[in-house]
Amino acid sequence: MKKKITKIGVLTSGGDSPGMNAAIRAVVRTGIYHGMEVYGINRGYSGMVDGDIHRLEGRSVANIIQRGGTFLKTSRCAEFFTKEGRKTAYDNLKKHGIEGLVIIGGDGSFRGAQIFSNEYDIPCIGLPGTIDKDIAGTDFTIGFDTAVNTAVEAIDKIRDTADAHDRLFIIEVMGRDAGYIALHSGISTGAEHILIPEKKTSVEDLIASLKEKERRKKLVNMIVVAEGEDFGGADELAKHIKKEMPHQELRVCILGHIQRGGSPSCFDRVIASRMGYHAVECLMEERFNVFIGIVNNKMHYTPLDEAVKKKQRISEEWLKIVKILAT
Amino acid sequence: MKKKITKIGVLTSGGDSPGMNAAIRAVVRTGIYHGMEVYGINRGYSGMVDGDIHRLEGRSVANIIQRGGTFLKTSRCAEFFTKEGRKTAYDNLKKHGIEGLVIIGGDGSFRGAQIFSNEYDIPCIGLPGTIDKDIAGTDFTIGFDTAVNTAVEAIDKIRDTADAHDRLFIIEVMGRDAGYIALHSGISTGAEHILIPEKKTSVEDLIASLKEKERRKKLVNMIVVAEGEDFGGADELAKHIKKEMPHQELRVCILGHIQRGGSPSCFDRVIASRMGYHAVECLMEERFNVFIGIVNNKMHYTPLDEAVKKKQRISEEWLKIVKILAT
Amino acid sequence: MKKKITKIGVLTSGGDSPGMNAAIRAVVRTGIYHGMEVYGINRGYSGMVDGDIHRLEGRSVANIIQRGGTFLKTSRCAEFFTKEGRKTAYDNLKKHGIEGLVIIGGDGSFRGAQIFSNEYDIPCIGLPGTIDKDIAGTDFTIGFDTAVNTAVEAIDKIRDTADAHDRLFIIEVMGRDAGYIALHSGISTGAEHILIPEKKTSVEDLIASLKEKERRKKLVNMIVVAEGEDFGGADELAKHIKKEMPHQELRVCILGHIQRGGSPSCFDRVIASRMGYHAVECLMEERFNVFIGIVNNKMHYTPLDEAVKKKQRISEEWLKIVKILAT
Amino acid sequence: MKKKITKIGVLTSGGDSPGMNAAIRAVVRTGIYHGMEVYGINRGYSGMVDGDIHRLEGRSVANIIQRGGTFLKTSRCAEFFTKEGRKTAYDNLKKHGIEGLVIIGGDGSFRGAQIFSNEYDIPCIGLPGTIDKDIAGTDFTIGFDTAVNTAVEAIDKIRDTADAHDRLFIIEVMGRDAGYIALHSGISTGAEHILIPEKKTSVEDLIASLKEKERRKKLVNMIVVAEGEDFGGADELAKHIKKEMPHQELRVCILGHIQRGGSPSCFDRVIASRMGYHAVECLMEERFNVFIGIVNNKMHYTPLDEAVKKKQRISEEWLKIVKILAT
Repeated sequence: MKKKITKIGVLTSGGDSPGMNAAIRAVVRTGIYHGMEVYGINRGYSGMVDGDIHRLEGRSVANIIQRGGTFLKTSRCAEFFTKEGRKTAYDNLKKHGIEGLVIIGGDGSFRGAQIFSNEYDIPCIGLPGTIDKDIAGTDFTIGFDTAVNTAVEAIDKIRDTADAHDRLFIIEVMGRDAGYIALHSGISTGAEHILIPEKKTSVEDLIASLKEKERRKKLVNMIVVAEGEDFGGADELAKHIKKEMPHQELRVCILGHIQRGGSPSCFDRVIASRMGYHAVECLMEERFNVFIGIVNNKMHYTPLDEAVKKKQRISEEWLKIVKILAT
Repeated sequence: MKKKITKIGVLTSGGDSPGMNAAIRAVVRTGIYHGMEVYGINRGYSGMVDGDIHRLEGRSVANIIQRGGTFLKTSRCAEFFTKEGRKTAYDNLKKHGIEGLVIIGGDGSFRGAQIFSNEYDIPCIGLPGTIDKDIAGTDFTIGFDTAVNTAVEAIDKIRDTADAHDRLFIIEVMGRDAGYIALHSGISTGAEHILIPEKKTSVEDLIASLKEKERRKKLVNMIVVAEGEDFGGADELAKHIKKEMPHQELRVCILGHIQRGGSPSCFDRVIASRMGYHAVECLMEERFNVFIGIVNNKMHYTPLDEAVKKKQRISEEWLKIVKILAT
Repeated sequence: MKKKITKIGVLTSGGDSPGMNAAIRAVVRTGIYHGMEVYGINRGYSGMVDGDIHRLEGRSVANIIQRGGTFLKTSRCAEFFTKEGRKTAYDNLKKHGIEGLVIIGGDGSFRGAQIFSNEYDIPCIGLPGTIDKDIAGTDFTIGFDTAVNTAVEAIDKIRDTADAHDRLFIIEVMGRDAGYIALHSGISTGAEHILIPEKKTSVEDLIASLKEKERRKKLVNMIVVAEGEDFGGADELAKHIKKEMPHQELRVCILGHIQRGGSPSCFDRVIASRMGYHAVECLMEERFNVFIGIVNNKMHYTPLDEAVKKKQRISEEWLKIVKILAT
Repeated sequence: MKKKITKIGVLTSGGDSPGMNAAIRAVVRTGIYHGMEVYGINRGYSGMVDGDIHRLEGRSVANIIQRGGTFLKTSRCAEFFTKEGRKTAYDNLKKHGIEGLVIIGGDGSFRGAQIFSNEYDIPCIGLPGTIDKDIAGTDFTIGFDTAVNTAVEAIDKIRDTADAHDRLFIIEVMGRDAGYIALHSGISTGAEHILIPEKKTSVEDLIASLKEKERRKKLVNMIVVAEGEDFGGADELAKHIKKEMPHQELRVCILGHIQRGGSPSCFDRVIASRMGYHAVECLMEERFNVFIGIVNNKMHYTPLDEAVKKKQRISEEWLKIVKILAT
């Protein structure tokens, strides 16, 4: 019979997202509640390779649930994707007697965990921490709700100016592979057009629609563009519109990194807390090498080796709503 | 064969909630898109009884998606719950040729709609607009997410002071029949105790736990209390604690009406937009006298005469998370 | 010749206010820049009496400029107002070799510092940290701007609901002796009436004005009341109005402790930084036993023994603006 | 004897800034209080030239004090800077009997007003509405405080990510001719370096300082750059640093138009209300062709023909504070 896990490590990996601290807190306190020792590993897999590992108490995670970023820091670590790097990482875990890991990050981080877990006898549990919501196997990721609210608040501010000047604004939001931030923030702010990676951008249709709106004197227009949209993002689009409609006053705003930070929303804190709690439960119940999602409001477990970027068709309903509501 | 509905009315009823404007906007624009005339009815059923009804255009709802409250205003209307009141209301609708209604409000408003629809040939569609999330038949209601984020931001501020002074705070949030706001905002802010209507308050256990925390010098404590909690709310609780622990420094905050207002969150704007769109679709497809919910991320339709307050057991998982994470 | 001060202590005392952390940070880093050792004293004068004193480095105050509350914690300390208490406090300072003090707090804390400094050879510099802005000798206090913005955001939310329901709201803000929060937040939110301690409340005039507004169907009204207003605060006022105008729908909101916390505004961070910097300069230039204010945008120094609550007549201009703009 | 002014117009001109609506509201209500008729002129001087002028009532400006942008809209108007344009504008004013104007805008708008007033017998009063605070003759401009708070909130979010990744961020804020937004937001967020138009950028010093910080492992750095800084803004700077320190991870954020919009801060609402009130007083007291500022907390009147961009030396005190506090 396998012996019970009594020492676990927790780390955040890849791009930071709001709610990661809430997830760490839940892992630490649930672990301690069950009599475990919990170790924080700094800067993602880099801290495993460098041995930057330290014991966490219940109080270590006091007063962090409301903070953006991650107090364990994060990074991408090339070394961990080499055999030697993983060997060193394993040796460092063993030094502390760590027998299980919780990794908070995206699909890339999960793949790293899977490789590591195949080579060494360290079960890994993944928690989806990414603002992009682009992981199959969960309806929500930790950070998406906050990021999209940040985008919405920023676009609301821009609309004040757009209205005051009757100007066209092109606003670029994050989302290299997924258009969720663009779609949600665009619908929420009444954007006239939303360009996303999941759908080929027809720039001709866009220009035609802008010209039609100009004819009926609809003056304020906002276009929300995901950075991964295929025409080339906000700057390219602006150049093209300028060429086709030279008299059109237009401005570009690239929201950028403000979307990653900030105090997490209630939603992100709650799902991070639930997921962190269940990560430790998984280690206790030997439900190993899965990442935890929420599907239809229930916990959902996907094997780490099935972790992939979500390639999802955006439903026709949503696209119709965009079209109808922004008229 | 029934003839197609071409004129519809929309109103907000009962307590206001953030996102109602986004829902109205979606109803108006979807109606117009399908060639309908759309009428706004002011102050809920009162406007129907008084004939305070006016035509809305697409532009009437420009630039309101981000506003709290409801630009159609709302009220509770005793007259509509009399036979004469409903007769007058019906006559006023007929004057404008209105053949269908969309009602945005809570379970009480839905029951009014059901009675009206039984008496007169006006199909009604309900949209759940309430911050309390206490309606069976939907996972979300328009306004809950915003309200709970407002509560969380307020409690975060209070924690700054609680920390600075090592004080106990009792914070009362809204929720006469449902503890959802208390539960979500309490988990999100690391409250030590959460008292809700769904669970009998054991004030002895609470005092015992506070005394135990005092012994181990855990100084900062926050207790989040739903207004409908059975011991008597924040003020009663404070009196009791003062009696049992006379040396304990403690403060009471009643968050009150700030929880109803404010610019709606992205989440509330999106679900309000989707629900508003589907309300018109229901009228077109003759799916009459239902209210629209979202269950497992899909549209869900509940007959209006089944609209009741949700009496839900809070799951054991949630209560365990509260207990473990706030240690 | 007096020898140069090389070790200083810093503490926060009395009620906490947003920006205190920014002030501490400025004291610590300016002290270190000038080659001093800087000590943090926890929980105000209590930490001096208990010897709860620890060395601070430049990094100790990293990443706190944006935090509400005070990481040194604060308290009111009765013991320090006894001769024995101050003796113990002095002995504890001497143990660490502390030769000068910076006290961030209100007029009560300054008086304590003055007494202490008269008895022992420890020069004290005061920084005005209070949300109430009720100290003579400075145009601004650390925390006022943040508190008043918090009040404004809360009242804006309440207005959404007031508008939606055509209701009268009575909103109580902080200010036991001073009406600045009420005055600024009331003007900023378009409150119809503002009741402050500096001006006798004529409840008859208030009722007359409400009745007059009722006659011309001005339905939405907000009354902002400072807690120290002489009629008895929001609850008393509500009772009185209910008696005189029984049909009037009205609600009371007491904003309470949310006004103390939260991330400080830019304004508060900047003045806290400037004041903290000058506190150390004062100790270096032997400008002893003063508190630092900003008057006409310049640093202003008031002897600690002249620190008193500001009893100021609110200018006629302001009262006229309230009256005219809220019509 | 000159006859009393009884009809006035109000407009917003140039770039929009938060608080303009509060200023319009104050002008309208103070005018009406004094028995005047008040006319709103849309889109700045363009509306004067086009005759886009309409009567405003007290209720026209209800519920706008909290809104960003300007409900009268704004623009830059080339035509008004021609003799013919101004003639048409004058004729349009005369049609409505307008005898005095209040212009809310920047120094360019004031110069337009001066020219107009020299040619035609229409006294003009200016109110400084600009986020840049770059007008001589006033300590504050309407919109600056809000803009700088927006910048601070955005930079706080970016710091979460900067901390999580130990990255260098270069953040560009608005300010073509003035560094006030950069200076205030930089001090408030603990930026290591602040580059402003008022001071020549020494890129060599900057690189030297970054290298020195790297040596002592200070990993997180933020540089705040005003868009008008002379080295070429954030993008140029990033290129240069990349060349000199190729291994340095760095990101650029250009905050852009979010700084113009949003609900005005309490401070901006209060000064806008005071200034708007005094604008009408000026017209009544025949204090013509001035713009209104606040200097040392008192109203200050500057002749319109002396309106110039402020060319101010940033005080040594401030630069020293930046240097010391960010260590």
